[in-house]
Amino acid sequence: MPGIQFDVVGIGNALVDVIAHADDSFIHQHELVKGAMTLVDTDRALYLYRALGGAVEMSGGSAANTMCGVASFGGTAAYIGKVSDDELGKVFGHDCRAVGVQFRPGAPGVDTPTGRCIIVVTPDAQRTMNTYLGVSSLLSPSDVDTDTVAKGDVLYMEGYLYDRPEAKEAFRYAAQVAHANDRLVSLTLSDSFCVDRHRDDFRALVTDEVDLLFGNESELMSLYQVDSMDEALRAVRKDCSLAVITVGAEGCMVVTEDDVLHAPAQPVDKVLDTTGAGDLFAAGFLYGYTRRRSLVDCAHYGAIAAAEVISHVGPRPLVELRTLLP
Amino acid sequence: MPGIQFDVVGIGNALVDVIAHADDSFIHQHELVKGAMTLVDTDRALYLYRALGGAVEMSGGSAANTMCGVASFGGTAAYIGKVSDDELGKVFGHDCRAVGVQFRPGAPGVDTPTGRCIIVVTPDAQRTMNTYLGVSSLLSPSDVDTDTVAKGDVLYMEGYLYDRPEAKEAFRYAAQVAHANDRLVSLTLSDSFCVDRHRDDFRALVTDEVDLLFGNESELMSLYQVDSMDEALRAVRKDCSLAVITVGAEGCMVVTEDDVLHAPAQPVDKVLDTTGAGDLFAAGFLYGYTRRRSLVDCAHYGAIAAAEVISHVGPRPLVELRTLLP
Repeated sequence: MPGIQFDVVGIGNALVDVIAHADDSFIHQHELVKGAMTLVDTDRALYLYRALGGAVEMSGGSAANTMCGVASFGGTAAYIGKVSDDELGKVFGHDCRAVGVQFRPGAPGVDTPTGRCIIVVTPDAQRTMNTYLGVSSLLSPSDVDTDTVAKGDVLYMEGYLYDRPEAKEAFRYAAQVAHANDRLVSLTLSDSFCVDRHRDDFRALVTDEVDLLFGNESELMSLYQVDSMDEALRAVRKDCSLAVITVGAEGCMVVTEDDVLHAPAQPVDKVLDTTGAGDLFAAGFLYGYTRRRSLVDCAHYGAIAAAEVISHVGPRPLVELRTLLP
Repeated sequence: MPGIQFDVVGIGNALVDVIAHADDSFIHQHELVKGAMTLVDTDRALYLYRALGGAVEMSGGSAANTMCGVASFGGTAAYIGKVSDDELGKVFGHDCRAVGVQFRPGAPGVDTPTGRCIIVVTPDAQRTMNTYLGVSSLLSPSDVDTDTVAKGDVLYMEGYLYDRPEAKEAFRYAAQVAHANDRLVSLTLSDSFCVDRHRDDFRALVTDEVDLLFGNESELMSLYQVDSMDEALRAVRKDCSLAVITVGAEGCMVVTEDDVLHAPAQPVDKVLDTTGAGDLFAAGFLYGYTRRRSLVDCAHYGAIAAAEVISHVGPRPLVELRTLLP
C-alpha cells in the first residue's frame, strides 16, 4: 500500500468562473433560479453572457476551490478534473499549480471546450450559477488517477459532477480505490436540485461508500426526502460515520453516531459574495480533520475559511488561510 | 460631413489583463521594471505566468479602459483595437459591449492570439506590467474604421500602441480623418520608456496632429528631453492647444496657451491597485470636455474616476461613474 502523499484528493467539475454583478431584475428577466446552480447548454450560456455586464474570469469549480483552500491552510492537496487544451483550461491548471495543488487533468484528446460557470452576484451577495459543463462533465473512470487517489488521506468528491453515468462510475471507482487503500471517502452533496435529479444513485453511493458527508440542510432533506432535520439526521447517521451540515449564517452541525455538535459561523463585517462559502468551509474542516484535530476545531477552521471567502468577490481565498489559524 | 455619434473614439492595444499579487521579492527575482510597462515575447510571458500565483483575468488595455470609463459616466464611446477569434478575444469584446462601448475589432484573419498584459500588483498597490502584445500590435490603417473616427467628437489614441510602423501609419491616418471632419485629436503618451523608444516619431505626431495631449511628468520630460517641468510646459504649449499632465497624488496640471491650472486629486481611503489610474483620469476629463464643461470641472471628473479605480483591484470602474458626479 502506498504512503500518504496528499491530505486530500478532490474530484470535481473543473470550471472557470465568469463573475458579473447584476440586480435582481436581471435574475427575474432571464428566469434564473436565484441561489442555485443550473446547468445550461452552449446557446443559453452564450445568451446569458451577452446579456451580462463586464465580467471577470477566475478559476472555480467546487472541489477545486476546496483543494486550493486545503493548500492555503498548509495542507497537501491534489485535484482530478477535466479541462480542454484551450486558454481557459490553461488558466485553470495554472491557478491550481500556483497555490501548490497537484493537478491531474485526466486523459486529453477531446474537442469539447473547458467548462465555465457564469455567476451572477446580486447586491445581497447571493450567487446564482449557470454552468456550461463543457469537457469537465466527461470525466470517466479512466480519468481517475489511481495512484493519486491511493495516496490521499481523504478522497473528496463533488456532487455537482454526479450528473452522467460515466461520472457516477468514476466516483464508484475512486471510492473503491480509496477504500482498498484504507482511505476515508467524503462527498459533498453540492446542490439540492442535483440531489433531486439523481436521488437514488446518491443514496446508494452514500450508503455504500461515503464515510464523511458534507451538505446543507436542504440538500440533506432532499437526499432522504424528509421534511424535518431530525428525520434527516437519523437517516444520515445510519449511512455515514460523520456528517457535516452547514446552516448558513447559523454555522454548522457535526453529526456523529451518538451526538450532534453545533458550531457557530465566523462573523463577517460585510458579506460581498457567497460564492465558495461551502467549498471553503469543507477545506477548513478537511484540513483540521487530516491533522486529527477535534471536531470542534475542524468546524472552527471551516468557519474561518468560509468567512474569508465571502468577504470578497471570487471563490478562492485571497490571503494564506494558515495566517488566520488561531 | 457625418454628424457626431460618439463623444470619444479610442484606438489602442486590445489586451486582457492577467492580474496577480506578489511581493517585491518577486519583482527583484524576475528582474521586472517596477511601475513600468515592459514588452515581452511569448516565452517570457509564459515564464512569468508560470512563476506567478493564482491570477484573475479581466479586460484591460489603456485606451479601452478609458472608453469604458467614458461610457460609465454616461458618454458615448467607440473603441478600435485588434483581437483574435479566441477566448480572450471574445472576453475583450464582451466586456466592451457590456458597458455600451461600440467595439470595432479591425480586420480578422490573423492567427496570432489576443494580447495579454501580466500585471503584478505589489503590497504598495503599484502595478508592474509585462505585455505580450499578440495580435493587438498588428493594427494598421486598414483596421481603422474611417466612418467611426469621422463620427467621434474626440479621437483618443494610446501611446503604447505606437511601437510598429503600421501602427504609426494608423495613428496618422486616424488623425487625418478626424481633422478632415473637424474633430479634436488627443493622444496619451502612456509610458516614458515607450516615448523614449520612439521620441522623434512621437514629437512629429504631437507637433503635426495632436490638439490635446495627456501624460505624466516623466513622459512629458522624456518627450522633450528636458530636465525641468518649466521647460517641458513651454515646449508642449507650442505644440498643443491643451495638455493635461497628471502628477500622481498631487493631482494634475492643465496647460493652456497662457495658463497652467493646478487641480487636486480626489482623496482615497486606501489605494489597492493603481492599474488604470491614468486611463480613468483621461476618461473623466474627456467626458467633461465633450460636455463643454470648464477645465476645472474636467480635471475634477478625471480625479473622481481615478479615485474610484485605484480603490479596488482591476483597471475598470466597478460602479457607474455617473453616480459619482457632483
